[in-house]
Amino acid sequence: MNEPRVITPIVAVSAIPGVAPVVHLVGMVLVATAFMMLFPMLADLYYGDSDWRAFCIASILSAFIGAVMTFSTRGALKSGLTLRQAFILTPMSWFSVALVSALPFYLSSYGIVSFSFADAFFEAVSGITTTGATVLSGLDNAPPGMLLWRGLLQWMGGIGIIASAITILPALGIGGMQLFRTESSDRSDKALPQIRQITTTIIGIYLGLTVIAILTYWLLGMRLFDAVVHGLTSISTGGYSTSDASFGGWEANGIQWFAVLFMLVGSMPFVLFVRAFAGEFRALFDRQVVTLLGFLAVVIGGLGSWLALTGQYGVEAAFRHAAFNVVSVISTTGYASADYSLWGNAAIGLFFGLTFIGGCTGSTSGGIKIFRFEVMAIMLRTHFMRLLYPRGVFPRAYGQRRLDEDVVGSVVAFFAVFFCCYALLSILLMAVGLDFITSLSGAATALSNVGPGLGEIIGPAGNFGPLPDSAKWLLSFGMMLGRLELFTILILFVPRFWRG
Amino acid sequence: MNEPRVITPIVAVSAIPGVAPVVHLVGMVLVATAFMMLFPMLADLYYGDSDWRAFCIASILSAFIGAVMTFSTRGALKSGLTLRQAFILTPMSWFSVALVSALPFYLSSYGIVSFSFADAFFEAVSGITTTGATVLSGLDNAPPGMLLWRGLLQWMGGIGIIASAITILPALGIGGMQLFRTESSDRSDKALPQIRQITTTIIGIYLGLTVIAILTYWLLGMRLFDAVVHGLTSISTGGYSTSDASFGGWEANGIQWFAVLFMLVGSMPFVLFVRAFAGEFRALFDRQVVTLLGFLAVVIGGLGSWLALTGQYGVEAAFRHAAFNVVSVISTTGYASADYSLWGNAAIGLFFGLTFIGGCTGSTSGGIKIFRFEVMAIMLRTHFMRLLYPRGVFPRAYGQRRLDEDVVGSVVAFFAVFFCCYALLSILLMAVGLDFITSLSGAATALSNVGPGLGEIIGPAGNFGPLPDSAKWLLSFGMMLGRLELFTILILFVPRFWRG
Repeated sequence: MNEPRVITPIVAVSAIPGVAPVVHLVGMVLVATAFMMLFPMLADLYYGDSDWRAFCIASILSAFIGAVMTFSTRGALKSGLTLRQAFILTPMSWFSVALVSALPFYLSSYGIVSFSFADAFFEAVSGITTTGATVLSGLDNAPPGMLLWRGLLQWMGGIGIIASAITILPALGIGGMQLFRTESSDRSDKALPQIRQITTTIIGIYLGLTVIAILTYWLLGMRLFDAVVHGLTSISTGGYSTSDASFGGWEANGIQWFAVLFMLVGSMPFVLFVRAFAGEFRALFDRQVVTLLGFLAVVIGGLGSWLALTGQYGVEAAFRHAAFNVVSVISTTGYASADYSLWGNAAIGLFFGLTFIGGCTGSTSGGIKIFRFEVMAIMLRTHFMRLLYPRGVFPRAYGQRRLDEDVVGSVVAFFAVFFCCYALLSILLMAVGLDFITSLSGAATALSNVGPGLGEIIGPAGNFGPLPDSAKWLLSFGMMLGRLELFTILILFVPRFWRG
Repeated sequence: MNEPRVITPIVAVSAIPGVAPVVHLVGMVLVATAFMMLFPMLADLYYGDSDWRAFCIASILSAFIGAVMTFSTRGALKSGLTLRQAFILTPMSWFSVALVSALPFYLSSYGIVSFSFADAFFEAVSGITTTGATVLSGLDNAPPGMLLWRGLLQWMGGIGIIASAITILPALGIGGMQLFRTESSDRSDKALPQIRQITTTIIGIYLGLTVIAILTYWLLGMRLFDAVVHGLTSISTGGYSTSDASFGGWEANGIQWFAVLFMLVGSMPFVLFVRAFAGEFRALFDRQVVTLLGFLAVVIGGLGSWLALTGQYGVEAAFRHAAFNVVSVISTTGYASADYSLWGNAAIGLFFGLTFIGGCTGSTSGGIKIFRFEVMAIMLRTHFMRLLYPRGVFPRAYGQRRLDEDVVGSVVAFFAVFFCCYALLSILLMAVGLDFITSLSGAATALSNVGPGLGEIIGPAGNFGPLPDSAKWLLSFGMMLGRLELFTILILFVPRFWRG
């Protein structure tokens, strides 16, 4: 357990030097992205919007680039990837997808009026990282293709991060995720079929849950198109909506309560669903899940009671708005049912704090994530005990798992790097002219992949459109950094990484 | 090195249960505080201000309480203190001093008009913690006794924290300060004379530096009274001034450059001065000192150039204001030579970030402190190397000292607890109604013992007077928490501390 083992075929010692295998795999991802662009193209054709051309051009371009990359490097993957190549693969593929996914925005007729390339890239990154921050206003009248593309980007990003979280990240030993290495990670010969099977099952479950969400929203009264987009962006905890008011316009039939449910589902570890699917229902009562639900109960109970007692809402509305917006921020979805920044300074402080937390690991949600807070709490408890009993021995455990020094160290490093990046990003945003609350909440919402920030500009009732391009580039980088758990990107900046 | 050793007589296994030895020592501290109150009483008598009565009453009361505590427990200290008693002693003595030190403010005729007890306590805590945040405006016309008392409080607090940092904190193993255990800490029989000698020398040096600062300010044109107060609050990196404009009114004769020098001196490890005093001048080039000076050079160089290039000031004024305010914040003094919050959002971001940093350990400055950032950086570098070379072994060192797992763990715990407290304090401040920037900067400036915050209310041109009493209590607690390096206070909240 003490060091990242190699996994076949994702991470295995390879004789092939250079980036050929990475180029090969990124090419395949681009082709898949090109294929996904056909759906918004069809939507625009169906609804008679001329924007279909943007998707057509972008799709052909992406497919061509992807195909060239894949075919020119065929055979490169025969011996799997080295550790170094695995490190390069993750940011490269996400960055490439973001780049081609920005094309339809940039090329769209809607975009010719208003999109700079910084806007288009920001929107695409916010999509695939399932952040949900948007530069767009006037969503209610936006072309259907664009709305669908935003939803699909988040949906692809959601399954992409789950796949990374159960395969690559634990193997690389990032941020304490080695805690969640499955047995299969350790025995390389058996790993391949197991990982394939788990991945296939998870994709099936993800697809199934999305369909259930779409049908639910549709049956409860949304237009089918709205239901599709919100289904895609609920399970992926993405948060893109088809309305400027987000879920504010859908109050009937308890639809917001179901949205709460789907956001929660999206922030659960998807491997648990696999085990539940195999009949092992008790797996659902995982330590992370129990802690998350307990924490939510306390926060929602407190906030809801306060909203009801202060008479800001009736009892049902108070608890609904509390549950909806708290779950939205903690699951890092980013929908809003109301402008909670109008609930007073206490609420602003609460939501700012919640921005950092995040859901469970192995889910679609971002943020620091529940298990890291638990590991930190265990570490601190041990530290206090050591202050009191300097000669004591205090074994540490997380649920059934022994908590190795290695895991604690990784979690601690994650927190440290997270807050370093956070501080730096905040200061850079202020340096390009943003005010205090916009910078601090913008940096937080980007790194945690939540969506809305705080303050008048980027708060739940605003959008990121008015920001300068420099801020959009910085925030795009922040979203990527947060989504890929920091280290996969930062390690590329370590000079020694590129030597030998 | 792996566990806090007992030091005679401060920390030694004792047969006496209970709090008698703590009461005894706290009583002695109160008597000393009562003695110090005679100086502002004499100042008020000399200048003919009726406020002398407040100091007289407070002094008699403090002396009486202190004497009763000391005499009723005489002999209690015979066998020294247990670990537990040492933990109780530190917060108890600081809290008791703050309480009696608040009396003169509360009783003063100046105070009868404007001081609530929360105000008086806030001002006293801000004094002895060398924070420098004030609830007072109209300082230029305040009674001299009160101004002197504020200066003396910071001066006492400064020497108090140096003494704690070289004796109690390393022994308790707090926040990685075991790294600075002297050889003498380990050999109990030799410890007492050595510690006494070091402490005496340090008090002498502290007094000498203060006199030099006072004379310098006086010779450069300050009134003697102003020079005395600013001398007391420069070396102690306290920051209380005798003018609402802080150092803004003293621009002539390079006086601000000398203030920069004295603030810097106050943020150096005082044990180094002891060694330099003994002829070992190379000791001054300690790793912390070099890092601090290098960091300051970069920040001041950048900010100064920017202020000059953007034409906000002439060249000399640009670098002077940059140096003065940056050193003021990093040394956690809290003087201001100009309202830097008017220099734009970039400057606000910079100063907010600097609030957390702090000077060297074993100095009078607060904040997280340079060496902890260095230890974190070393830890992170090792972590990145481990990601790249999972089987590698990476020994860690800090300067000449080996960096044990124990020290790294303590530093990490310090950071974690610092930011937990910071988050909690910020949210509580918002909960009592403060706005975003006031809460976030107020919590930071309190925990780091800097002084001014940001925003219109508590920024460098404002003061803490307009805040509600609840916020003042919270901030007072924050200042104490930060000054005593968190754990000495927080451990009192661990239930197990009080058992057995």
